[in-house]
Amino acid sequence: MFRSKTCGELTIKNVGETVTLAGWVQTIRKFGAITFVDLRDRYGITQLLFGEELNKQLEENPLGREFVLQATGKVSERSNKNKNIATGDIEIAITTFNILNKSETPPFTIQDDTDGGDDLRMKYRYLDLRRNAVKKNLELRYAVNRSARNYLHENNFIDIETPFLIKSTPEGARDFVVPSRMNEGQFYALPQSPQTFKQLLMVSGYDKYYQIVKCFRDEDLRADRQPEFTQIDCEMSFIEQEDVLQMFEGLVKRIFKDVKGIDYNETVERMTWEDAMWQYGNDKPDIRFGMKLCNLKFPQHTFPAKENISSLIESEFAVFNDAETVVAIAVPNCSEYSRKQTDELIEWVKRPQIGMKGLAFIKCNTDGIYKSSFDKFFSEEKLKAIAHAANAHAGDLVLLLAGAEERTRKAISELRLEMGKRLGLRKEDEFKLLWILDFPLFEYAEEENRWVARHHPFTSPKPSDIATMINNNPTIENAAEYLKHPYANIKANAYDMVLNGNEIGGGSIRIYQKELQQKMFAALGMNEEDQQNKFGFLLGAFEYGAPPHGGIAFGFDRLCSILGGSESIRDFIAFPKNNSGRDVMIDAPSIIDNKQLNELQIKLDLK
Amino acid sequence: MFRSKTCGELTIKNVGETVTLAGWVQTIRKFGAITFVDLRDRYGITQLLFGEELNKQLEENPLGREFVLQATGKVSERSNKNKNIATGDIEIAITTFNILNKSETPPFTIQDDTDGGDDLRMKYRYLDLRRNAVKKNLELRYAVNRSARNYLHENNFIDIETPFLIKSTPEGARDFVVPSRMNEGQFYALPQSPQTFKQLLMVSGYDKYYQIVKCFRDEDLRADRQPEFTQIDCEMSFIEQEDVLQMFEGLVKRIFKDVKGIDYNETVERMTWEDAMWQYGNDKPDIRFGMKLCNLKFPQHTFPAKENISSLIESEFAVFNDAETVVAIAVPNCSEYSRKQTDELIEWVKRPQIGMKGLAFIKCNTDGIYKSSFDKFFSEEKLKAIAHAANAHAGDLVLLLAGAEERTRKAISELRLEMGKRLGLRKEDEFKLLWILDFPLFEYAEEENRWVARHHPFTSPKPSDIATMINNNPTIENAAEYLKHPYANIKANAYDMVLNGNEIGGGSIRIYQKELQQKMFAALGMNEEDQQNKFGFLLGAFEYGAPPHGGIAFGFDRLCSILGGSESIRDFIAFPKNNSGRDVMIDAPSIIDNKQLNELQIKLDLK
Repeated sequence: MFRSKTCGELTIKNVGETVTLAGWVQTIRKFGAITFVDLRDRYGITQLLFGEELNKQLEENPLGREFVLQATGKVSERSNKNKNIATGDIEIAITTFNILNKSETPPFTIQDDTDGGDDLRMKYRYLDLRRNAVKKNLELRYAVNRSARNYLHENNFIDIETPFLIKSTPEGARDFVVPSRMNEGQFYALPQSPQTFKQLLMVSGYDKYYQIVKCFRDEDLRADRQPEFTQIDCEMSFIEQEDVLQMFEGLVKRIFKDVKGIDYNETVERMTWEDAMWQYGNDKPDIRFGMKLCNLKFPQHTFPAKENISSLIESEFAVFNDAETVVAIAVPNCSEYSRKQTDELIEWVKRPQIGMKGLAFIKCNTDGIYKSSFDKFFSEEKLKAIAHAANAHAGDLVLLLAGAEERTRKAISELRLEMGKRLGLRKEDEFKLLWILDFPLFEYAEEENRWVARHHPFTSPKPSDIATMINNNPTIENAAEYLKHPYANIKANAYDMVLNGNEIGGGSIRIYQKELQQKMFAALGMNEEDQQNKFGFLLGAFEYGAPPHGGIAFGFDRLCSILGGSESIRDFIAFPKNNSGRDVMIDAPSIIDNKQLNELQIKLDLK
Repeated sequence: MFRSKTCGELTIKNVGETVTLAGWVQTIRKFGAITFVDLRDRYGITQLLFGEELNKQLEENPLGREFVLQATGKVSERSNKNKNIATGDIEIAITTFNILNKSETPPFTIQDDTDGGDDLRMKYRYLDLRRNAVKKNLELRYAVNRSARNYLHENNFIDIETPFLIKSTPEGARDFVVPSRMNEGQFYALPQSPQTFKQLLMVSGYDKYYQIVKCFRDEDLRADRQPEFTQIDCEMSFIEQEDVLQMFEGLVKRIFKDVKGIDYNETVERMTWEDAMWQYGNDKPDIRFGMKLCNLKFPQHTFPAKENISSLIESEFAVFNDAETVVAIAVPNCSEYSRKQTDELIEWVKRPQIGMKGLAFIKCNTDGIYKSSFDKFFSEEKLKAIAHAANAHAGDLVLLLAGAEERTRKAISELRLEMGKRLGLRKEDEFKLLWILDFPLFEYAEEENRWVARHHPFTSPKPSDIATMINNNPTIENAAEYLKHPYANIKANAYDMVLNGNEIGGGSIRIYQKELQQKMFAALGMNEEDQQNKFGFLLGAFEYGAPPHGGIAFGFDRLCSILGGSESIRDFIAFPKNNSGRDVMIDAPSIIDNKQLNELQIKLDLK
């Protein structure tokens, strides 16, 4: 052992002890004949004092930043105490030292506020990982991992490893594939999730399974996606949706407690998918703040049960009249926005990411006067009625968007989040959980004029919708009227868990009857041969006594980043890849030898 | 929830309670008007009693083996108790039941002694996993996992995930590769181990790292190898070999305690690689029994420090005279072996797997008389001297093999293990740990006339051998005399942990100096460009203050199989692959769409 103590544990109680520390030189400060060195390791920083008698030795063996140093001396009380660090009361009066390894000057400073840009930090990730800010993220990640495992263990879950070299069954995202040398011309696929294997484990009788496991998706990477990511993957048998919800609320609450010290005692809210879209324009709403949508106009078929209040906006105003959808939010205490401020908001919604043509507003002044950007079409009375419908109070600013249903709903949702952020309503240290329930089972794929599974092909319909699914032909005769097909109304036995506006987990009660699973595959356009080739093993398993079952998977990287108060999952992954799927540190992927290609019996076919 | 209790928890204390169980029908027994059903779930088996009043319902809904059944009734005391199972005192008098799913007749019985052969069980692995024997293995695996994590956590190790999509750097085994769609013509590799990443984590200051992680090797599979396997992977900084040995003896002892209830209080034995080869002919000896080798003749250069006792076998006997090596073991209490028995042993060593031409023996009869298979060349006096050298006692049978050094040493080791097994000396419930130390750093690769790393290129030489390594040119001028090259004598700072004759873990103190690492790469025939391409990131990291570090990796599958008393790791893997690397259940690997190949810009190139 190169040390007797770490750099994070010595306090005033250790004064007088002779200790040996080892770590990295953080700073070197000379004061006349004496030298102070801050020595850093995983556990903290300790000040070393090199007295005059060591000067000759220091001249012969000069120290530098990030040198690896072993030093022995006596713990002494500091005259000039540092209350900011745990070891700030003491220093070590060094008697002997030994440079274990030297260091070049690092390309950026090893500090919380480093001068290194993203690219540099990624290239030298092994140095970036030395920074306290990054270390805290990885420690938080481990704490979440540990907490989840403890909770699941105590609840009788068993960790069972599922294989990584499996079969390519592209449904949704692309698979990464692995050529097999021993089975020429054939390929394994890396799992997008252990979905079918965990279902087989339920068929096998392991009624509570979990795994914290790497998954892979060969997608075009958006800003915050990684080709390999980690899931907390769980499945249970002999349960209904309610059992799953309770079990996994419990998991997240436990993580809150263990990792953040938060007692989340309130009831976890629940919302149907339809209500989420209606009230927030979004299936993962941030409910830390209000500003719910006021649906002034909408295509009735999208929300058949909702009240039509479009009479409120009847006028000569073409923008509203020509729009499929008009929605509003009441932004609190912003009625005094200047022209400059409202203009800026108009530019904001016109950005290509939002894509609206404009923004209308009503100022609900504190003096009771209503002013809008469309005054010439509406009386103050009518403005007041709209503001009232939007639940605006005196001093609020009502923002209105008009356009095509899907885009407008998305835009108002983005605008709501933006205003929430600007007003400081999305507090980093506040955590609000939410279940979204009753998703549609199917989505319509326009290009192929067929149904696709919104969640995945193993999700069961609500029990009350099974007959609809079984007794109708999935074929869509009239593409234009697909919404009138009975399948459009089938609800899934599925649930997403949302935290502060992010989907952190999703799951469903699964199909466990062979006939229903076949009907589902057929609905997705798979013929019987396809079904057998891709999922014959699962259909086979369903012939031998499959129990009712369901589960959930949490996005582990995302969960950690939210708990850590960061927008980027990359900050919580030790060795992340960039947006081109590259690891710039090790420079992967890379070309491989022809010998390797030959053995695999493949060759390049570059376009 | 489909049940209020499990099938494993009800006892005499629950009599009178109304409960609902759910599980699989294990057996159905009719006695006149009543029917007994054994219902099975993950937790046990409970007897259900269907009275006469349910007959009509049973006729309309007949039960069958492996049907999934939900049943409600009152817990009653059994008249005919079954002391073999935990729930054997009670049964459930069923009032209502519900068939949750039917089952075809399974292709083999779901019992400990199943009638299903290997192939059938692998194809229907989801049914095989229902058998108690397999379930116990997976439960043991989870217990080992949990125990290891707890120990490492308590010792301040942190679980940090390393990437799966890395860079191909074939050294030793072949990599599995993954074509990158986004970086055309380039490939990721799946890790054979997280070796370089865990070393980078040490450079980053995470001084105790662990991971229980999948690794991949595209090797031609021998009987008990899997293309994907699991390691307990660990690394520490600021430590020396002794610290690693103690930490990980502790880990294995903790697993013994948690999983098997064994207090392993004895000191873990240690043995140099040379002594292991000398005494057991094997670098992973089973030390649960003696029968150490008597080295009657050997090439002096292989064991330069050992005493030459070949005068004991000087005679006219050509078999000994022509042999490079003659070794013996004394098999206890077998002096009365019949001609048939010794003939059978002779056939045993002649099998191609052993490959010897014959076997000589000396019977040390209990009456003090010595008889051998080569009496005409040796006086009884000389036989007695040989037997004495082999440490034989009255009643023992001395077995002698003669031939080329390497083959003969391997053969005597196999013979020793075989005799140990036949004599019941390899007890399944006895566990003996052993460290093997001081391995050679290099092996000689004849085809390429160069050195290869015995462990891997990151293992450091013993400190006392560093100068030898730095100051000599690794080139082997004279292939025939490679053993005279100074590199042949360099010892590695490496260690293997052996349990009952199996290597369960291995590791080393690593190189952490850039120059030494470069020298190592050069010794293995890598030029500077190669070094930069493959390991530039590691050499780079060593420039910025790499601490002294070292670690170990345990073969998790193997460790579980030994603790579970099985020879096959496959029994301890939920979804294993066969000897061709195929998963016969899901039928993978398989062909993939041309569309997928096109996107990846590769094509097949079948020979």
